[in-house]
Amino acid sequence: MATVAFIGLGNMGGPMAANLIKAGMTVTVFDLNPTAVAALTEQGALSAKTACGAAAAADVVITMLPAGKHVRSLYLGDDANKGLLDVVSKQALLIDCSTIDADSARLVGAKAAEKGIEFMDAPVSGGTAGAAAGTLTFICGGSDAAYQQAQIVLTVMGGNIFHAGAVGAGQIAKICNNMLLSVLMVGTSESLQLGLDNGLDPKVLSDIMKVSSGGNWTLEKYNPCPDVMENVPSSKDYQGGFMVDLMVKDLGLSQEAAVASNSSTPMGSLARSLYVNHARQGNGRRDFSSIFEQFSKKK
Amino acid sequence: MATVAFIGLGNMGGPMAANLIKAGMTVTVFDLNPTAVAALTEQGALSAKTACGAAAAADVVITMLPAGKHVRSLYLGDDANKGLLDVVSKQALLIDCSTIDADSARLVGAKAAEKGIEFMDAPVSGGTAGAAAGTLTFICGGSDAAYQQAQIVLTVMGGNIFHAGAVGAGQIAKICNNMLLSVLMVGTSESLQLGLDNGLDPKVLSDIMKVSSGGNWTLEKYNPCPDVMENVPSSKDYQGGFMVDLMVKDLGLSQEAAVASNSSTPMGSLARSLYVNHARQGNGRRDFSSIFEQFSKKK
Amino acid sequence: MATVAFIGLGNMGGPMAANLIKAGMTVTVFDLNPTAVAALTEQGALSAKTACGAAAAADVVITMLPAGKHVRSLYLGDDANKGLLDVVSKQALLIDCSTIDADSARLVGAKAAEKGIEFMDAPVSGGTAGAAAGTLTFICGGSDAAYQQAQIVLTVMGGNIFHAGAVGAGQIAKICNNMLLSVLMVGTSESLQLGLDNGLDPKVLSDIMKVSSGGNWTLEKYNPCPDVMENVPSSKDYQGGFMVDLMVKDLGLSQEAAVASNSSTPMGSLARSLYVNHARQGNGRRDFSSIFEQFSKKK
Amino acid sequence: MATVAFIGLGNMGGPMAANLIKAGMTVTVFDLNPTAVAALTEQGALSAKTACGAAAAADVVITMLPAGKHVRSLYLGDDANKGLLDVVSKQALLIDCSTIDADSARLVGAKAAEKGIEFMDAPVSGGTAGAAAGTLTFICGGSDAAYQQAQIVLTVMGGNIFHAGAVGAGQIAKICNNMLLSVLMVGTSESLQLGLDNGLDPKVLSDIMKVSSGGNWTLEKYNPCPDVMENVPSSKDYQGGFMVDLMVKDLGLSQEAAVASNSSTPMGSLARSLYVNHARQGNGRRDFSSIFEQFSKKK
Repeated sequence: MATVAFIGLGNMGGPMAANLIKAGMTVTVFDLNPTAVAALTEQGALSAKTACGAAAAADVVITMLPAGKHVRSLYLGDDANKGLLDVVSKQALLIDCSTIDADSARLVGAKAAEKGIEFMDAPVSGGTAGAAAGTLTFICGGSDAAYQQAQIVLTVMGGNIFHAGAVGAGQIAKICNNMLLSVLMVGTSESLQLGLDNGLDPKVLSDIMKVSSGGNWTLEKYNPCPDVMENVPSSKDYQGGFMVDLMVKDLGLSQEAAVASNSSTPMGSLARSLYVNHARQGNGRRDFSSIFEQFSKKK
Repeated sequence: MATVAFIGLGNMGGPMAANLIKAGMTVTVFDLNPTAVAALTEQGALSAKTACGAAAAADVVITMLPAGKHVRSLYLGDDANKGLLDVVSKQALLIDCSTIDADSARLVGAKAAEKGIEFMDAPVSGGTAGAAAGTLTFICGGSDAAYQQAQIVLTVMGGNIFHAGAVGAGQIAKICNNMLLSVLMVGTSESLQLGLDNGLDPKVLSDIMKVSSGGNWTLEKYNPCPDVMENVPSSKDYQGGFMVDLMVKDLGLSQEAAVASNSSTPMGSLARSLYVNHARQGNGRRDFSSIFEQFSKKK
Repeated sequence: MATVAFIGLGNMGGPMAANLIKAGMTVTVFDLNPTAVAALTEQGALSAKTACGAAAAADVVITMLPAGKHVRSLYLGDDANKGLLDVVSKQALLIDCSTIDADSARLVGAKAAEKGIEFMDAPVSGGTAGAAAGTLTFICGGSDAAYQQAQIVLTVMGGNIFHAGAVGAGQIAKICNNMLLSVLMVGTSESLQLGLDNGLDPKVLSDIMKVSSGGNWTLEKYNPCPDVMENVPSSKDYQGGFMVDLMVKDLGLSQEAAVASNSSTPMGSLARSLYVNHARQGNGRRDFSSIFEQFSKKK
Repeated sequence: MATVAFIGLGNMGGPMAANLIKAGMTVTVFDLNPTAVAALTEQGALSAKTACGAAAAADVVITMLPAGKHVRSLYLGDDANKGLLDVVSKQALLIDCSTIDADSARLVGAKAAEKGIEFMDAPVSGGTAGAAAGTLTFICGGSDAAYQQAQIVLTVMGGNIFHAGAVGAGQIAKICNNMLLSVLMVGTSESLQLGLDNGLDPKVLSDIMKVSSGGNWTLEKYNPCPDVMENVPSSKDYQGGFMVDLMVKDLGLSQEAAVASNSSTPMGSLARSLYVNHARQGNGRRDFSSIFEQFSKKK
């Protein structure tokens, strides 16, 4: 059975690591926050004093961090500290599950390749609920060999597992998807409100569009108009779900990628601006379907 | 068996009327173009010298015209000419299948109601292929009674038949759907191109997004990136399908509705501007998925 | 000295008519609101029981109404009522100062021309302050002769008087200008906020851009960032000035024109959506430079 | 008289250095391209074998490089090479005239400050013509002392010299201005075309808007509609001026800054997408006012 190091035990990383433990794996964890570490050791994890200490003897190293700079620093080290790449076994598989800029993923991947170590980016979607339930979606970027080898841990933590291409492709595929999702959400919101403003019942209009050429994931699973669907954030005052602040983060990553590759994304960048406005009006911690309120009349 | 008058025998109206004839109905046709009339009389239609002549004795009157002004003029007449409302039987059901502004539909509906006549707007989608095959989608606006009564003819010409609400609701639901469709098409195009610009295979990216939260009708049925799907316009140099000029028309209707109801449609109006630019560059008669070329690199 | 009929005595029309009286002209007024009429007769105006009664004997007829439908109805009449065109002298000059859709202006102009009567559209800008001070800007559409003849009244009510072209051109020029103004205001707001978010002093940044290639009317006269300029709405909690609701109206007219002429206006239509959102959040009666708050951080 | 090192002798840097020589200063130059160096030594410059060699003994060091990575590498060095900060005199003033991301400018500024060296970012506008004529605009970010000290060289190379704030503020002010400029250019283009599509003379419309609330730098100096102004790129098939590719670069920098500071820039990001589309259609090396052609009808 593989030994796993898990570094970064936040809202997502914590339950992901817990699922590996439940599956019987030997998991050594590290986080700067001792409370987060304690929560895992109570469930049977080993702990280490440093990230490098946790990773040194592992077959698989999994990291879950906030941003590209943390990932670069952890894997590459700096003047004062060694990086993971300096201490792990050549046979180890490194999997970064953070959602970060593709350039950082590619940089770490290139440095790992120089040392003959397999690295894969594997950003997730599915939120804290999916992390706890072990039903996350992983979008992977790395070699075929790495992708195959990773199945042993990813299938424990997730449901859908995709192979998007080489290192960095996981990040790109995720931000392409989430940029498109933001466009679906805004476009669906304004279309439903246009119907409402012209006297249509939003349930009837949703039912028509859902099976017509306007059909999309938000109409199917996540209708933004209150009281059209049950058990979605729009029917619970936009609580829960995927926060506006996280959508703003992902749209920022997609815009950075678009600038770097000289790509045109009129809809995606407009969605980003609307979401930033929405966040600045105090909605950052509400579900991202609350963008519907930008279009609906104030009561 | 109902007797039907069919007025407006263009690319859509001609095959629609032909399907009614094939179903054994007595159909009296009218069009300003004698060639279009002759094509139907050869298939067994009766003809009349005027639209009012065709409609006077019919149980059901179906009209298929280019724009709101034609519909208003035909139904309401003017100083010189009687309108359909002046000549039809009080028991007749009037169905306008044109895609026009909702205000015109509501105006004709109100005038019909004053005379105790049932009127329904029932714009279609599905194109000339759907008209010929009898598989059109109808989105209806009118009373429940009118909607029930209309089934006898609509089921002959179409597959999906929706009841969106009162008179005018058919037009509104159609333009909401088509506005959303344009947003899906542009958003999907720019997302795929962003992936391509960053080294992803568009088939792989499409497969991932199709089953993820970016999933939408264009990824499912009508991928805009060449050679991702077979038998769609993008794989046939954007020939066939739904013309850019028709999307521009529908987006114009959606903007007129948005202005009239004081609604905000940032994505829909941006899509309209991008489609107008695209049409002005000479792409008006190509399929609307050719908007993808606005984002792809010039060879 | 010319005799003038003035129809429509609202916030703008009232002070405009008053200036004509002060200049010694014989002015006969009409409005549906008797209080508005009384305010003018106290200043020396004559009054009439109907609009047609006021206009019948006038050398110059000036109208100031809310929307195209009012203008069409007043000038053209309907089944029950005569229109101005039915009663005025062939030598009269008709000047409509309303801000309306160009199609309505062109329709009235064409009907007037059929009867050999000169009609001119002359929408104004400058607000109620300009109306009171007699410093309005008029943008005229009509023949050279009409434009010359109109100087006698326009110079009394206004400062800048432009001749944009034939009938309807006044309306088009005004909505082109106001659409561009909305773009300047939004673009300047987001640029200033981007600077602020990056630590710049908005006064310093405004001073730099004002004399650089970013220079525009809003930086010169109407800075949207609070406390950069004195005596502008942004430094008075966005009170006074040009209301958001009026900008929304003008942007609606520009979008109707763009749809009718199949024109692409990505910036103008985006500005319209942002202003509609802003109005729906309760800002309709604040100055239009308050759009700056869509970009600034919530306190 | 100050001794100057000038590093980076491209289309802009070459003529800038030449003007310093003409003013009698002792200028030591460096560029990777020996032809560029030769062009300056013929005019009286000294040359050095390395950038550090040129800078070591200079009172003022001026750099003009393509992007942030070049600036970081030159000033900070790397594992193999020393950077300018390692070799220059503590009394030297370092001025980077490149247009780069503000983060790179701030990083270099912070590292210089650690060593007690004055660093200033001073991006320019005015193009190659302004560089040759010595009429460039400089927008400076740095201490008051640095700004005062820099006058001796900046006044030789430029006309307008602005002090935007601390290190990095020059870059921010420049991208704010250029983002706003792009919005003015697109907004003016679509407004003029909307007028044209409705029968107005673009000269007449430009004259009206120029002195009205739509007034802006592009109407004043750089009208994008052909044949409205003489001696501007739009009247010379959009040759010369400021290239689309350079505007795309600056809009990329503004979007990176907006993402970093979590700012909303709906107009600026839309302008970027439209300019990227325009560049991809083969217009990258034409003047940026050629965006007008995106809105005008195909002949």
